[in-house]
Amino acid sequence: MIRVAIIGSGNVAYHLAKCLHGKQQVSVESIWVRNPEKEVLFNTYTYRICNDIHALPDADIYVLAVSDSSIASVCAQLPFKDKLVIHTSGATNIDAICTKQRGGVFYPLQSFSIGRVIDYNKITVLLETVNESDKPILEKLASAFSNRFAWVSSEERVKYHLAATLVNNFSNHFYTLSELFLHKNNLRFDLLKPLILETAEKVQHLSPKMAQTGPAKRLDLPTLERHLSLIEDVDLRHLYEIMTMSIRKIHDDLNREKNGHR
Amino acid sequence: MIRVAIIGSGNVAYHLAKCLHGKQQVSVESIWVRNPEKEVLFNTYTYRICNDIHALPDADIYVLAVSDSSIASVCAQLPFKDKLVIHTSGATNIDAICTKQRGGVFYPLQSFSIGRVIDYNKITVLLETVNESDKPILEKLASAFSNRFAWVSSEERVKYHLAATLVNNFSNHFYTLSELFLHKNNLRFDLLKPLILETAEKVQHLSPKMAQTGPAKRLDLPTLERHLSLIEDVDLRHLYEIMTMSIRKIHDDLNREKNGHR
Repeated sequence: MIRVAIIGSGNVAYHLAKCLHGKQQVSVESIWVRNPEKEVLFNTYTYRICNDIHALPDADIYVLAVSDSSIASVCAQLPFKDKLVIHTSGATNIDAICTKQRGGVFYPLQSFSIGRVIDYNKITVLLETVNESDKPILEKLASAFSNRFAWVSSEERVKYHLAATLVNNFSNHFYTLSELFLHKNNLRFDLLKPLILETAEKVQHLSPKMAQTGPAKRLDLPTLERHLSLIEDVDLRHLYEIMTMSIRKIHDDLNREKNGHR
Repeated sequence: MIRVAIIGSGNVAYHLAKCLHGKQQVSVESIWVRNPEKEVLFNTYTYRICNDIHALPDADIYVLAVSDSSIASVCAQLPFKDKLVIHTSGATNIDAICTKQRGGVFYPLQSFSIGRVIDYNKITVLLETVNESDKPILEKLASAFSNRFAWVSSEERVKYHLAATLVNNFSNHFYTLSELFLHKNNLRFDLLKPLILETAEKVQHLSPKMAQTGPAKRLDLPTLERHLSLIEDVDLRHLYEIMTMSIRKIHDDLNREKNGHR
């Protein structure tokens, strides 16, 4: 049984606490919650809530589920140097764990929101350790959380984090811009929801390059011009033009490749 | 029983033929397939395949499922003026139907690919007719296709088409850019697939503005700079910067609104 202490009370801490609850291989011994208002998030579970970081009970793994910018400073407050301390950040190097001798990373490649129900088994967890000898225990923690994990270096992990930003933050931003545009025109965003879902489902089985459709890909100039004439917002129009050029470029490259291989 | 003739053999024609097959309210009488190579797509069904547009058998609705730029010219070839002719385009005005007297539109708000299995009941169909008296028959056709339809004008429909371009084409393009970036770095795109799906699922229940996370939203400058330093492609770097500024702008506006309401 791996004894875990969770340090933090944000989205990742919440989902870790929720997912690991009642698991056979892992026991969450305590959660460090700096802000007492957040304690309510963990009331469902009989975890020991700890407000004083120096009073954290003994554990095998200390999970720093705090903001990227707090990792080093919270780590420095930990009252020991010989325990395995891991952070959960995609963009932060493993050496932010100041103990260094026994540092690790447990980065779930997912966008978490408190309260949202998630199938944890579908999340890929990216793992890293400073010491080879800490791999088995981290792998056990990962297995208790999800079916899918992969060992990657800090350099690789930040690249996954960047790619995740493109597919999550940037796609979601187009949902937002679309909602704002429709509402401004007194139209309904909910009509688009099945399309949003199908767009994501399609690339579970098909390469996104092959799944692409639309006026930019087929260089449908009348439609592109009609769309641009409908966008009043200068920034959105600029974004539309740049996205269209980028789609054209990728598909021109693809066509050239195809022709070259013939 | 509504007798339907489908004119075209592309993605929309394929899915219409597939979905309407065996429906009680609707009978597909024939399909006009210009390119004989495409006939194989419809072999599963015992539809009458017709290569000569002048030999189309009698029907109650003629569905022009052809490319936007062919609607007017194919319509002009139809050997009658008194039948209900509808097109399936999001960006094309209803007046592209040259009969005018009995024109209509049946635009499924979805991105179709041949061979892909889709739950048609989840697709919103946007409907329009020139004549009020053609509404009931078009509504019957829509009901045979999906549970969800809405009556919108040509001006409204092209705005939905634009919004659909943002959430489908542009989101999918970020999946493509992400795949290209990861492959260039010898990393695995498949690890991102659960995140892509969750991003789309989240906004089925939550406004995308509220679902937004990431370094741009929280103005996490070290991560933004680290990401930019990893992108070798000039166009992708430019796109990353513009998307980041756009996310910042929307969320600054939101914060100002929140503060203004206090």
